[in-house]
Amino acid sequence: MSDIHAQIETMGRQARQASYRLSQLTAEEKNAILLAMASGLREATPAILEANAQDLEAGAAKGLSKAMLDRLRLDAKRVDAIAGGVEQVAALPDPVGSVMESWTRPNGMRLEQVRVPIGTIGIIYESRPNVTSDAAVLCLKAGNATILRGGSEAIHSNRAIAAALEAGGSGAGMPEHAIQLIPFTDRASVSALCAMDKWLDVIIPRGGRGLIETVVDQARMPVIKHYDGICHTYVDAAADLDMAVKICVDAKTQKPGVCNAMETLLVHTDVAEAFLIRLAGAMAEKNVELRGCERTQAIIECTAASDEDWVTEYLDLILSIKVVDSLEEAVDHINSHGSHHSDCIVSGDGEAAERFLRAVDSACVFHNVSTRFADGEEFGFGAEIGISTEKLHARGPMGLRELTSYQYRIRGEGQTKG
Amino acid sequence: MSDIHAQIETMGRQARQASYRLSQLTAEEKNAILLAMASGLREATPAILEANAQDLEAGAAKGLSKAMLDRLRLDAKRVDAIAGGVEQVAALPDPVGSVMESWTRPNGMRLEQVRVPIGTIGIIYESRPNVTSDAAVLCLKAGNATILRGGSEAIHSNRAIAAALEAGGSGAGMPEHAIQLIPFTDRASVSALCAMDKWLDVIIPRGGRGLIETVVDQARMPVIKHYDGICHTYVDAAADLDMAVKICVDAKTQKPGVCNAMETLLVHTDVAEAFLIRLAGAMAEKNVELRGCERTQAIIECTAASDEDWVTEYLDLILSIKVVDSLEEAVDHINSHGSHHSDCIVSGDGEAAERFLRAVDSACVFHNVSTRFADGEEFGFGAEIGISTEKLHARGPMGLRELTSYQYRIRGEGQTKG
Repeated sequence: MSDIHAQIETMGRQARQASYRLSQLTAEEKNAILLAMASGLREATPAILEANAQDLEAGAAKGLSKAMLDRLRLDAKRVDAIAGGVEQVAALPDPVGSVMESWTRPNGMRLEQVRVPIGTIGIIYESRPNVTSDAAVLCLKAGNATILRGGSEAIHSNRAIAAALEAGGSGAGMPEHAIQLIPFTDRASVSALCAMDKWLDVIIPRGGRGLIETVVDQARMPVIKHYDGICHTYVDAAADLDMAVKICVDAKTQKPGVCNAMETLLVHTDVAEAFLIRLAGAMAEKNVELRGCERTQAIIECTAASDEDWVTEYLDLILSIKVVDSLEEAVDHINSHGSHHSDCIVSGDGEAAERFLRAVDSACVFHNVSTRFADGEEFGFGAEIGISTEKLHARGPMGLRELTSYQYRIRGEGQTKG
Repeated sequence: MSDIHAQIETMGRQARQASYRLSQLTAEEKNAILLAMASGLREATPAILEANAQDLEAGAAKGLSKAMLDRLRLDAKRVDAIAGGVEQVAALPDPVGSVMESWTRPNGMRLEQVRVPIGTIGIIYESRPNVTSDAAVLCLKAGNATILRGGSEAIHSNRAIAAALEAGGSGAGMPEHAIQLIPFTDRASVSALCAMDKWLDVIIPRGGRGLIETVVDQARMPVIKHYDGICHTYVDAAADLDMAVKICVDAKTQKPGVCNAMETLLVHTDVAEAFLIRLAGAMAEKNVELRGCERTQAIIECTAASDEDWVTEYLDLILSIKVVDSLEEAVDHINSHGSHHSDCIVSGDGEAAERFLRAVDSACVFHNVSTRFADGEEFGFGAEIGISTEKLHARGPMGLRELTSYQYRIRGEGQTKG
C-alpha cells in the first residue's frame, strides 16, 4: 500500500470511530459545537485571509482565470458569512432520532423506524474554500464524520478553515477526527478515498462533470451525484401567456449560470405564434440569444437549433426553443433530452398540468412556478448540500434529512420464531 | 461495441421506454397484469418443468452438488407457489403516488413529495429460477421495468418462466419490454449491465459475495447490496436468563443457514457463569458447536475461538462466545466485528437496552426479540426483495416501498424569483 493510501486508510478508520461518538451526541451538544466553530472561524479570520492570500498568489502565478480567482477569494466579510452559515445550521432542527414510523406486529413486537446518521461521508470538491466549512458542518449536524478533499488551488485556505473549525469545535466537546481535511492534494488521494468502502459510507463530489465522472468510475461506495440541469419550461395550449412570459424570463435570465435555470423552451403549436412573438421581445431586452427549431424560425428571428442544443446546459443567456404538437410530445422531449432535474408546465388546464407532473421523470416538476425555485433554501430546508440527480436515497434538493439513514428498533418480551 | 454490449444497450433503452409507460399505470392496471401473469405461470407449468429438466440434466452432467441441484429443481407445487407469490404481490398496497409530505411556502407555492417508481432495475442472480418471477413482479408492482440476468445453470428454466410472465402479462396490458430476461449468460453481459448507467437506475445483485463484489467493482450506477449477516446477541447483566436462553437457542438453531441467524454471543461477566452453564446444556441438545474466548473456556467446555471466528458468518450450527465487562464493550465488539445487519440485547434494564439500541450501528436492533425476526414478512412488508446492508436509500428488509424513489411536485400561480 502506498504512503498516501496508508494515511487515508488511517483517516478512514478514525472517521468511523468519530462517527460512533457523533451519533450519540444530543442536538444541544452538537449545536454547542457548531456555535463554537463559528466563533473559531471568526477568531481565525486573519490566519484564514493570510492563507487565502497564499492561494491567490499561487493561483495568479499559475495563470488561473479571473473567474477561478474570484471563486477562490475570501475577505473578512466572506469569512463572517461562512461563520454565519455555521450558526444557521446550528439553528436548524436535528433530524437524528426522529421516529419515521412505528407499528406493532401480531406477535406483540413493536417496531420503530428511526432516523440515524449515515456515518462517514467523503466530500471531494474543487476551488471554493467555503465548502470546507459548509459541507462539514451540515454533515456534523446530522451526526456524520467527514473526510474532506479540496482542490489544490485552495489548499492553504482549506487548511486554515479546517484548523479554525477544529480549534473552535474541540473546545466544545467535538469528538476527535469528526472533521478531517486531507492535508495534501495528490490525485492518488481521490483513488484512495474511492477504494475505502469499509470506512466511508458515501462520497459526495461537488464540482464539474469531470470530477464526478472520475469518482463514479472509481468509487466502490455509493456516490451522490449533482450533475447538470437541462431544465425545460413547457408552455401549454391553455397557458396564460402573460404568466408564461414572466416565468420564462425569470427561469432563463434571473441567474443564468445555475443548474435550475431554463435551457430549453417547449411551446404548444396552438399558442406558438402568439407566445413566441411576445417572448422574443422580452428576451431581446435581456440580451438572450434564441436558437429555434424550424417551426420556431418561421415565427421569430433566431438561429437554427442543432441536435446538440437540446442536450446542452448553456449556463448562459442562450435559449433553445421547440414547437410541439402536444403535451405528450413535450413530455417525451423532456424525458429523452433533459437531465431529470427540474421542469415546468405553464397551463391554465389543471388536468393537463397533473398529467405533465406525473409523466415527467424529474426530481422537481413545477406547475406555474419558475424552475429557479428548485433549491433547498426555497423549499424551506434551511441549508442544502446540493441538488442530487440521483434517484436513490436523495433526489433533488438535499438538506439535513438527506444526510441521514435509518435503523429499525424492535422491542419485545422474548419473542422467538420457533 | 461488442455484439453483447449492443444487445444489452438495446434492452436498456427499451427498459427505459417501458418504465415511462409503467409509471403511468394505476394500481388496478398493474394488479390485473400481475394476476394474468400468475395464470400465465400456472398454464405454462408443463413447459417450465420441461425446461427445468433440461437444466437439471445439464447440471448433473456438469457435476453440480446436490445442494445446487436442489436449489435449481422445480416441480408442479413449486411453480404453483411461484404463481401464488405473484398473487400475493398483487394484493399488496401500491406505494406509487402516495404523498410523503406536503407543505406551503411563504410565497404561496405548494410542495408535495410524492412516491414514484425508481425507473429501471437490473437484477443479477444465481441459481434459483424462482427469482426470475419473484424479483420481476415486485419491481413491476412498484412501477419499475426490469432487466434480469440469471445464472447459466438455470437458463432454460428462467427463459420459460420469463416467457410465461410475458404471455400472461401482455394479454392484460403489460407494456412491452417491462420485464426482459437476458437470453444468454456470457460474463460480458454482467459488465455490459454495469456500464449502462444511462439506462439502468440501480442494480440489485442477489447471490454470494463473489457476485456482489464483481458488480460493486464494475457498476457505475448505485448497487443495493445484500452482504453477510454476522448477527450478535448480547446477554446483559440484567437479563432474564430463561428468556436469554430461549432467544439464543431460537436465533442460533431455528434456521441456522440464513443471514439473520446469530453467529456470536456476547455475555456480561456478572451473569456469565450462571448463563453459560445453562446455555451450554440447551445448545448441546441442538448439537451446536461452541467456540469461546478464554473466559468462556474457563466456565464451559468448548473449543477456543480464534480472531477469525469473530468475523465469520458460519451459517451453520456453530456459535462463538465472548464474555465482556460492560454493555459498552459489547457495543464496540458488535460495531467493529459485525456486519451491521441485526443485533439483539437481552436485558430487563430498559435504560441499558435503549443505550444499546442507539449505539449499535446495525440495520435492525432488537431488545428481547430473536434476530430471526429481521425479515420483510415478519416486519409486515408482505414481500421482500432482500435485506439490504446499505445505509443509503434502503437499509434492512426491503419491501415495495424501498423499490420507489420520490419526486417533488410544486404548484403555484406564476411565482418567479426575480
